Amino acid sequence: MLICTNCGMEYPLQRHLQRCEACNEPLQLETARGVKRDGKRVWERFQDFYPPLNLNYSLGEGDTPLLYSEKISKDTGNEVYIKNESINPTWSFKDRGTFLALNRALQLGFEKIGVVSTGNMAASVAAYGAKAKLDTYVLVSSTISKDKLAQISPYGAKIMLVEGNYGDLYYQSLKIGAQLGIYFMNSDDPFRVEGYKSIAYEIGESVEADYVIVPTSSGGLFRGIFKGFVEMKESGIIDKIPRMIAAQAEGCSPICDALRFGYEKIKRVENPKTIAHAIENPYPPSGNEVLRLLRKNNGLCITVNDNEIIASQKELASEGIFVQPASATSLAVLKKLNLKNDIVALVLTGSGLKVKMEYNGVLSFCKIDDLKKCMEGKL
Amino acid sequence: MLICTNCGMEYPLQRHLQRCEACNEPLQLETARGVKRDGKRVWERFQDFYPPLNLNYSLGEGDTPLLYSEKISKDTGNEVYIKNESINPTWSFKDRGTFLALNRALQLGFEKIGVVSTGNMAASVAAYGAKAKLDTYVLVSSTISKDKLAQISPYGAKIMLVEGNYGDLYYQSLKIGAQLGIYFMNSDDPFRVEGYKSIAYEIGESVEADYVIVPTSSGGLFRGIFKGFVEMKESGIIDKIPRMIAAQAEGCSPICDALRFGYEKIKRVENPKTIAHAIENPYPPSGNEVLRLLRKNNGLCITVNDNEIIASQKELASEGIFVQPASATSLAVLKKLNLKNDIVALVLTGSGLKVKMEYNGVLSFCKIDDLKKCMEGKL
Repeated sequence: MLICTNCGMEYPLQRHLQRCEACNEPLQLETARGVKRDGKRVWERFQDFYPPLNLNYSLGEGDTPLLYSEKISKDTGNEVYIKNESINPTWSFKDRGTFLALNRALQLGFEKIGVVSTGNMAASVAAYGAKAKLDTYVLVSSTISKDKLAQISPYGAKIMLVEGNYGDLYYQSLKIGAQLGIYFMNSDDPFRVEGYKSIAYEIGESVEADYVIVPTSSGGLFRGIFKGFVEMKESGIIDKIPRMIAAQAEGCSPICDALRFGYEKIKRVENPKTIAHAIENPYPPSGNEVLRLLRKNNGLCITVNDNEIIASQKELASEGIFVQPASATSLAVLKKLNLKNDIVALVLTGSGLKVKMEYNGVLSFCKIDDLKKCMEGKL
Repeated sequence: MLICTNCGMEYPLQRHLQRCEACNEPLQLETARGVKRDGKRVWERFQDFYPPLNLNYSLGEGDTPLLYSEKISKDTGNEVYIKNESINPTWSFKDRGTFLALNRALQLGFEKIGVVSTGNMAASVAAYGAKAKLDTYVLVSSTISKDKLAQISPYGAKIMLVEGNYGDLYYQSLKIGAQLGIYFMNSDDPFRVEGYKSIAYEIGESVEADYVIVPTSSGGLFRGIFKGFVEMKESGIIDKIPRMIAAQAEGCSPICDALRFGYEKIKRVENPKTIAHAIENPYPPSGNEVLRLLRKNNGLCITVNDNEIIASQKELASEGIFVQPASATSLAVLKKLNLKNDIVALVLTGSGLKVKMEYNGVLSFCKIDDLKKCMEGKL
């Protein structure tokens, strides 16, 4: 059953629907219940919580490390764990959702898939489409940089550079997809959300988190992680649902704004501007649902500015974990909060290799004949 | 015990030695034996084969996917599995070796570590040095590109740009390291090799490979994988050791050359030139040992040219796996061999994100108002 997150309208699972026909809010699958099984992969251990998945189309997504950070724990006075989603087949969390949505597409008989994205999700859908030998359409903005194009293009998808207002493309692609028989697995597709809930399973089976901090853009990731914890709780696998914290960038924080100012619905951010491009969605399609979840469950939404983001990105790298700026928002948020003696899980969403960086540190030059002296600082 | 791979000279494990004092060939640990245990991580399952490892310094390396490729299997008439090492903490196989060498360094009481590398290994050592809060020296060539520097620098290591002949720096760094108390964990450090043997464990516990193809540069990776299979065989975990194939680039193939022309030792390649920069080592420090292993065990060494490498990189991407050119040599070699009905494992060493690529495919431009027609190809 697909259920509207807003009005509760129900639709049979056989229908390929992503948003409610009555209120246009996102749909989601009903709460799954089950027991945890043995298995190497999260898809095996939590098979009760999923439709049958064809692992032939897996690229090895999920089961990422959850690392205890002694330094960040000490510095903040908490017990801090880092969920590093950059260790995935296309180096971001998107792969979990793409794997689920791909299974859904194949199960419904689609031979074409698509996505609207210029970043992590574009590369992910291109990769899984290639694996499954499906025609794959990636709609990017015509202003895409060469570097980003180079990360998406190797997989051989049909890349369409779209000129015009990119803002409404999410909705337009769903419409065109229905007409052309293309399954557009955009950011908060109900099955994508099902994929993301595996992050909660992996956190929940290892630590009893008090707080989970999630970089939040479209809202699909936040929704998935929350749903995963709810399902574990209702299945008796964990005792409590962690308090969920959405992290947004100050320059684009439609969900935090709505929560702070008491709006009933999110409002489009007119001039989004942040270094955290991966979460720079001015009008997130699951924004209202995340807002509802935060209100209902005493969640928090916290913004951080670009300087705080860059400082946290550096701090994570000094722990051996190099992530893109959007990922660093979760640590930046933790540093702003006044938590003490809590167990906190930070979700890091994607690899630092994906974002062009300039080296701005100090460089030492050494002549090879004087190398020893040079290394000792005696030159 | 540390044993010389060439003359058999033995040294106690307490001594920090990497090469034989008598013949200057690489040392390695004696063959380990044991049983496979239960455990989520390869370090736990194969703990019998390792010294005690402090998992607090792990970044989550290892346990990478081994993917069956239906298409490559059909195309070549074999059963082909892909070991994707790009799904590691710094996105290459180097992390396994760095984790082991770091454990060794800490066990010996070192507070400083170092490495000679401009690529994957530099980033890996910088990351693990950061995690363990050690002073970390990365010696790169002063001609390093900005892009490569940007991948190494975030972790905060001391990067020394060395001017002069980079060729002898491997040996010079070991000497300077001994004087300054820096553990240089270069490409074929004995403990690095111990780390790489975990790749063999993970292949061996899943499939009974007839052949394993390994991109080969310094020789450390090849040696580690072979040692892992020997240990599994001698411990009764597998029935046979796969035939090992070293893959080299035509423009830099000192090991294949020596095997083909019957040299007793490898000769330095004078003008190395290949797109596969990660395996462009003109005088590999474990080259002679790989040569000995190939001769003793009926192994193969196969070269592929840049066009073959680029074609294989594309083919892997069309299976959803984007790797750097050096990694694609293993598929390129398979395509040159006349294997039939064999079980083959291809080792892919590092992420495609690490190498600057230009998009050179066809691009479609669509105006948003005509998007449907444009996607149908009707414009």
